[in-house]
Amino acid sequence: MSATFDDAYDRTATRSTKWDAYETYLKVPSGPDVLPMWVADMDFPAPDFLTDAVRDLADKGDFGYFAHVDTMCDAIVWWMQTRHNWTVDPAHITPVLSLGNAIAMAIQTWSNPGDAVAIMTPVYHEFASKIARNGRTVTELPLLTDGPRFEMDLAAWETRLTGKERILLLCSPHNPGGRVWSASELDGVAAFCARHDILLVSDEVHHDIVLPGETFTPTAHVLAGHNVRFVAMTSASKTFSIAGSRLGTVIIADQALRNAFRHTVHCSDIAPNLLGTVLTRAAYSPQGAAWVDDMNAYIAGNVAAFKAAIDTIPGAKMSDLEGTYLAWVDFSGTGLNDADLWARVTGEAKIVPSPGLPFGTGGSQGLRFNLGTQRANVLEAGERLKRAFSDLQ
Amino acid sequence: MSATFDDAYDRTATRSTKWDAYETYLKVPSGPDVLPMWVADMDFPAPDFLTDAVRDLADKGDFGYFAHVDTMCDAIVWWMQTRHNWTVDPAHITPVLSLGNAIAMAIQTWSNPGDAVAIMTPVYHEFASKIARNGRTVTELPLLTDGPRFEMDLAAWETRLTGKERILLLCSPHNPGGRVWSASELDGVAAFCARHDILLVSDEVHHDIVLPGETFTPTAHVLAGHNVRFVAMTSASKTFSIAGSRLGTVIIADQALRNAFRHTVHCSDIAPNLLGTVLTRAAYSPQGAAWVDDMNAYIAGNVAAFKAAIDTIPGAKMSDLEGTYLAWVDFSGTGLNDADLWARVTGEAKIVPSPGLPFGTGGSQGLRFNLGTQRANVLEAGERLKRAFSDLQ
Ligand SMILES: Cc1ncc(COP(=O)(O)O)c(C=O)c1O
Ligand SMILES: Cc1ncc(COP(=O)(O)O)c(C=O)c1O
Repeated sequence: MSATFDDAYDRTATRSTKWDAYETYLKVPSGPDVLPMWVADMDFPAPDFLTDAVRDLADKGDFGYFAHVDTMCDAIVWWMQTRHNWTVDPAHITPVLSLGNAIAMAIQTWSNPGDAVAIMTPVYHEFASKIARNGRTVTELPLLTDGPRFEMDLAAWETRLTGKERILLLCSPHNPGGRVWSASELDGVAAFCARHDILLVSDEVHHDIVLPGETFTPTAHVLAGHNVRFVAMTSASKTFSIAGSRLGTVIIADQALRNAFRHTVHCSDIAPNLLGTVLTRAAYSPQGAAWVDDMNAYIAGNVAAFKAAIDTIPGAKMSDLEGTYLAWVDFSGTGLNDADLWARVTGEAKIVPSPGLPFGTGGSQGLRFNLGTQRANVLEAGERLKRAFSDLQ
Repeated sequence: MSATFDDAYDRTATRSTKWDAYETYLKVPSGPDVLPMWVADMDFPAPDFLTDAVRDLADKGDFGYFAHVDTMCDAIVWWMQTRHNWTVDPAHITPVLSLGNAIAMAIQTWSNPGDAVAIMTPVYHEFASKIARNGRTVTELPLLTDGPRFEMDLAAWETRLTGKERILLLCSPHNPGGRVWSASELDGVAAFCARHDILLVSDEVHHDIVLPGETFTPTAHVLAGHNVRFVAMTSASKTFSIAGSRLGTVIIADQALRNAFRHTVHCSDIAPNLLGTVLTRAAYSPQGAAWVDDMNAYIAGNVAAFKAAIDTIPGAKMSDLEGTYLAWVDFSGTGLNDADLWARVTGEAKIVPSPGLPFGTGGSQGLRFNLGTQRANVLEAGERLKRAFSDLQ
């Protein structure tokens, strides 16, 4: 099964952001011995059903304006039905440039400068920066972080709202920490948004990367009974590691909301590109489904291997991953501050994780490690971290 | 030379917008005998240096986040230098999603709702619709349209301005009508913008498609001596018919203007995609240059053939094309109104051109025919039009 996942694959040769640009973005001096575990894509070469789709594009030889987005939408509908038991009307889909673009368009559509957008921290750092960049303020709803499992804290969040929140941007499954929110947790979020008349925007880009035994619940499934306005966002980009092709999918059942969103998209002239369309269509297929099952099983092995190493480091605590390939390690028990922690991990262990602070409240003294890579890299990272923290033994 | 340009190539099979979607967009019933000549892309299969680049992308098998936009920018710089004698600093380039997206981002950056944007009509219909969609108003600066050549009318335009214009959106070369504006005409525009303190945004997407004997002048070359704020926009999309890959190039030398534009782009999370990046890099190459020379020579033959046919229709007058593959035919001499003209051309001749009215003042009783196609199609179109208008002989 996992032969292809174990195979070495040189992503410096392809000039991937993860392997080529950590010095630019994170100021860690580059070198052949550095192990990058930051940007959220995977280090596996694309499976044949994706490369074949791209070869077919080359063989056809037409890179002009195209009218076959409908076949991609059909594939999206098929995927949501078969993988998530979620019935999507193709007319409800708006393809955009990426998840990041989808979030930006949502912020621009449903809030004004000075309004607030709520997020559950620690969370994917670009949520806060996109909100701020657009002149909106961030309302942090801190997750409970005791123990290896992030938990919502709805009662406390009631007191956190300022009244200016127009949107709650949910990350489901959660990045970082890898919670696959349960139906009852999501139900609580829907009720919370309904109670405060806040639009619920659910970023479900990690929904396919769910470890064996776990089940993802689309937020769309918990809405009945709540008078809540709702927008879902997803993509094949994380699942198949095709984020460079740039295609995001926004699903909005409510017509008025959908029209408002499409107006924003139209104003900025956002349209799907050929590669994103072709890859998404090829990905959302029976072959894609089989590949994802194998990939999730492989990731589960990586998670177990990494956790075994982290568990040996006194004061380091890794979240129990239910979904995503993004392991959150809370180093607060080591007593190291963020700067010392960063210096030790990047300088001594020569690993480049994502720094925790930009994830917001709860992010300090944490680091996010991307386990979407060959097992050998995960084992090597574990060994390096154990060595780097051996003085704490 | 032109063997590949003459070769039949079935773009219904690739579901191109031009061949597959005219019924959706223009309500002309589709059929195998319909000859679509609307959307501005070309009907030639992509040359080998482009399909090879896409095969290489498949062979590499990495569709994740990538860091090689720099090599594309180097290719852009090389192209502007060697093809247009225009020295571009790579640091001045901002890649965006498309020319349409570039225009939208410019409107959002440098005007507010209620402000006006000036355009020279008749002009590419999306200029006006993008301006209106963003809640700005259009100030039309009508071109002189007597004779087969559009001319600027700067003196008259002085009286057209309302004082609300923040941007003049120039189309250079001009779509439709195919004027390749002279240095002195462009100088007049720069002086006009300087005089009225209007930002000059030059859409130069057609700059490579210039018929043998004509020379394109980058607007950047006429700015010295004018205190004018300036933004250039271009793309390989029209030149190589790769608009489906979605990559626009915005070149801004002034740092404050560039930062303002990049802020807007960043707020909407616009980033280049892999296919657009790879194709643009492959296109802007010595092989690309040779292909464009051949393509322009072939288009010149199409232009001559089409003009010969139009010249036989009493009351129809085709603009002298200096650049672009977009022939403008003024049918006002036939006395037919827009509806009758449309019915005759789509219903009797079974040709789908772009209707003239959306191009704004000066567009009525005109039709735009896309000659970026096999010579056989151009000759066939000529014969059909002659027949459809034979009662006027
Ligand atoms: C939760 C979440 N949303 C959005 C994104 C960004 O996706 P895109 O590259 O499509 O903008 C990421 C990437 O890591 C993510 O984790
Ligand atoms: C002058 C002009 N600008 C922009 C565009 C649109 O380009 P894009 O597809 O990159 O948005 C066109 C397409 O016909 C055009 O003629």
